Amino acid sequence: MRLDDEQRLNWLRLIRSDNVGPRTFRALIARFGTAAAALESLPELARKSGRPVRVASREEVERELAAARRFEVSFVALGEPDYPAALRAIDSAPPVIAVRGETAVLARPMVAIVGSRNASANGQTFAGRLARGLGEAGFVVVSGLARGIDAHAHAESLVTGTVAVLAGGHDKVYPAENEPLLQKIVGRGAAICEMPMGWTARGRDFPRRNRIVSGLALGTVVVEAARRSGSLITARFAMEQGREVFAVPGSPLDPRAEGPNDLIRQGASLCAGVDDVVTALAPLVEREPAQKSLFDADDLNDTGEPLWDEFDWPEVAPAPVAARAAYDPGLYDGGGRADDERGRFPAQMEEGARIVAGLLGASPVDVDELVRGSGLSVRVVHTALLDLELAGRIARHPGNRVSLLAS
Amino acid sequence: MRLDDEQRLNWLRLIRSDNVGPRTFRALIARFGTAAAALESLPELARKSGRPVRVASREEVERELAAARRFEVSFVALGEPDYPAALRAIDSAPPVIAVRGETAVLARPMVAIVGSRNASANGQTFAGRLARGLGEAGFVVVSGLARGIDAHAHAESLVTGTVAVLAGGHDKVYPAENEPLLQKIVGRGAAICEMPMGWTARGRDFPRRNRIVSGLALGTVVVEAARRSGSLITARFAMEQGREVFAVPGSPLDPRAEGPNDLIRQGASLCAGVDDVVTALAPLVEREPAQKSLFDADDLNDTGEPLWDEFDWPEVAPAPVAARAAYDPGLYDGGGRADDERGRFPAQMEEGARIVAGLLGASPVDVDELVRGSGLSVRVVHTALLDLELAGRIARHPGNRVSLLAS
Repeated sequence: MRLDDEQRLNWLRLIRSDNVGPRTFRALIARFGTAAAALESLPELARKSGRPVRVASREEVERELAAARRFEVSFVALGEPDYPAALRAIDSAPPVIAVRGETAVLARPMVAIVGSRNASANGQTFAGRLARGLGEAGFVVVSGLARGIDAHAHAESLVTGTVAVLAGGHDKVYPAENEPLLQKIVGRGAAICEMPMGWTARGRDFPRRNRIVSGLALGTVVVEAARRSGSLITARFAMEQGREVFAVPGSPLDPRAEGPNDLIRQGASLCAGVDDVVTALAPLVEREPAQKSLFDADDLNDTGEPLWDEFDWPEVAPAPVAARAAYDPGLYDGGGRADDERGRFPAQMEEGARIVAGLLGASPVDVDELVRGSGLSVRVVHTALLDLELAGRIARHPGNRVSLLAS
Repeated sequence: MRLDDEQRLNWLRLIRSDNVGPRTFRALIARFGTAAAALESLPELARKSGRPVRVASREEVERELAAARRFEVSFVALGEPDYPAALRAIDSAPPVIAVRGETAVLARPMVAIVGSRNASANGQTFAGRLARGLGEAGFVVVSGLARGIDAHAHAESLVTGTVAVLAGGHDKVYPAENEPLLQKIVGRGAAICEMPMGWTARGRDFPRRNRIVSGLALGTVVVEAARRSGSLITARFAMEQGREVFAVPGSPLDPRAEGPNDLIRQGASLCAGVDDVVTALAPLVEREPAQKSLFDADDLNDTGEPLWDEFDWPEVAPAPVAARAAYDPGLYDGGGRADDERGRFPAQMEEGARIVAGLLGASPVDVDELVRGSGLSVRVVHTALLDLELAGRIARHPGNRVSLLAS
C-alpha cells in the first residue's frame, strides 16, 4: 500500500500534533479508522481531557513538506514498501520517517555500531574496522552521526552502505562538524529521522532517536561506552526489541570499557571482531523480523487507507471476581471484539480513565499489570491510557509501561 | 591420619618410581593396600609388562629428605590434615606435596591469579590490585611465580597470604630472578611443589604444575593471556576440576586479551574487579569442596596405613550381550566388589590389557568409553590401564582419558 498525498498530509498532521506519539498515533487510528477522522475528533478528545491539544494545521505541514523538498527528503509511512521491515516490527515504530538519500539502502539487513563520543584511538580504529568488515559481509551500518565511534563507523561504511539516524530535523544537523560526513552518507546511503524539519534536537530527543538506531538493525554493537551513556540506552532498546546485542570488551582500567563489560556480564555477546557479529546475524538475515499485524489486504477501509487493528493487545485472564466487584461491573466487558466498540465513546470510558489514573504513580507500571490490577477490560484500559496521554498526564516507557506525570 | 616416617618414605619411593603418576599411585594403593606392598610388587608388574620400571630406592628418597630439611621443606601426604582440602578433591591430586613456608596458609580459601609473562603495564597493575583486594577479602592468592602477572599477584598479597606453586624442586627455582620474591613469599605464605628436590623444570612440567594452581583454588582469574598460553591451560584445568573461571576482558586489538576474551565467550565470568570474584566465591567458602572418598576411619588397615578404595569408578551399564560375546566371557565379571579381587592377578588381566591396548590410539579416549566399548568390567579395564601405564605404553589425560603412546 502507498498513501496518496492527502493521506500523507493527514498522517503528518496527526503525528505532529501535541501529545501524539507513535503509540497514541496507532491507538487513534485503531479507534477512528483513519488519520483524517482522528484529526476531526482530536479537539473533542482534548476538551474532555480538560487540556487543550494543539492540532497541527494543514498549513504547518504543507510548509514542512516544502522545506523537505528543498532537502530532497521524502516521507515514508509505516506500512509502505520503503519502510524498513525491522523498524516496522518495534513497538514504538515512527508512523512516518523522513528519508534523505538512497531509500534502497533501507531494504538491506543492518547492524548498528554505537559508542562513546570521546572514544579512544583504539576504540575508533576498532569501530572503523568493524564497519568495513560488516559492510563487506553485506550489512548496512547504522549509527547516530555522533562524534567518535559513530562517525568512524559511518566513515568506514560509506561505500558499502550506511544509515545515519538524526535526533533533530534534516535541516538541523547535530553536530555541525559532521555535516560534511552526512553529505557523503546520503550519496550512497541514507539519513533518516522522525522529527519535523526545523527541529533542533534537545537532550531527550537522543534516547528517543536511539530506539530507531537499534530498531533498524538486526543487532547493535557497543564499542566503547561509559556507564549511563546513550549507547547503553541503544543497547537496552535493542534487548527490548528482541535484537542481538554485542559488546566489545576492554580493560577494566578504562572507564570507557565499563559499559560494554557490564553488557557482557548481563548476557550480551562478546564482540572481538567481524566474525562474532556475522556468525550470529547471518542466520537472521533471511528471516523476516516478527511483524506486528499492522495492516494487510483485509484491513484497508473503503478510502483505501489502512484500518489498524489495535496491535498485539496481550491476552489477559479476567481479574478475580472480588477485584472486579470493586469496580463498576459494566466496565468489565470480557474482552469484546474491537469492532463492537469502535467509534463509541461511552461514559464508562471516562470512569475507566479515572480508575486507571488512580492506579498509576511516578514509577512506570506494566500495562498488563494495570489491566490485571484494575479488573477492567484490555480495551477500556487502553482507551483510558489514550485519553490520559492526550491530556499530557502520563508518559509511555519502553516495555509497554506507563507512569503518571507530575501535574 | 598422619603417616609415620617409614610410611612417608614409602609413599615418596612409590611416587618417585618410574611411570608412577598420581593416578597410578592411587590405583596401586587400591590394588595392593599399602605403599610398601605396592613397592614390593612393582618389579614383578614391570617384568610382566616387558619394560623395566626403575623403583626409587630407599637411599635416593633419604637423600631427598635430607636435602628437603636443609630448605625447611616438609612433605604432606594426601589425606593428612595439612593437605589442602580443595587440592585433595581433584582427580590427579599429588600423593605428596613438598611445602616450604607456613603450612597454615594452606587451610584458607584460595583464589588463583594467572596470566601472561610479558604482561602489559595495565595488566600488571590490575593483577596487583586484584591480589590486594582479594587478600583483604580474606583469600589466599595462588600463582605460579612466573614473571609478569604471577609475580605481581604474589607481590601484592605477601601480607595477606600467597602460595607459589613451583614446576621444579624447591632448590631449583625458576625463574631465578624471582628467588628474592620467593623468599618473601615463604615468610608468611608458602611455596609448594610435587617434584623432587633437585628437579629442574622442563617444558612439560609447567602444564602439570598448573593443575595444582587451579586445584588449590576455588576459582582462577586469567588476567592477560595470548591464545595457546599456559594460563589457558590453568583455566581449562579449573573448568575440569569444577572450579570457577574468571577472565579479565581487554581490547580485541591487544593479542594478550585474546585468551581472556575467548574464555568469556566460552562462559567464564567476566572479572572487572575484586567484587566480581568475591561475589561468586564467597558462597563457596563455607562449603567444603566435594571430596573423593579416599579414606576415612573404616579404611585404615591393620598397619594404620590407609587402604584406598578404587576411587570413583563410574557406574557403567553392562555392554550389550553381542559385544560381550566377542570377548572371553570370563573377563566380564559383572562389577564384583574390590575385596573379591584384591591381591589376585589372574591371567585374564593380561588378556584385558591386550584388548584395551587394541582399542586405544593416539587420540585420548574416555575411560568410560573404553569400558563400554570393550565389554570388560570396570575393574578389569582399570587394571589393564594400570599395567599399560606402568609399561609406559599409555598417557593419562585430563577428564579421565587415556591415549596410546607411540612405542
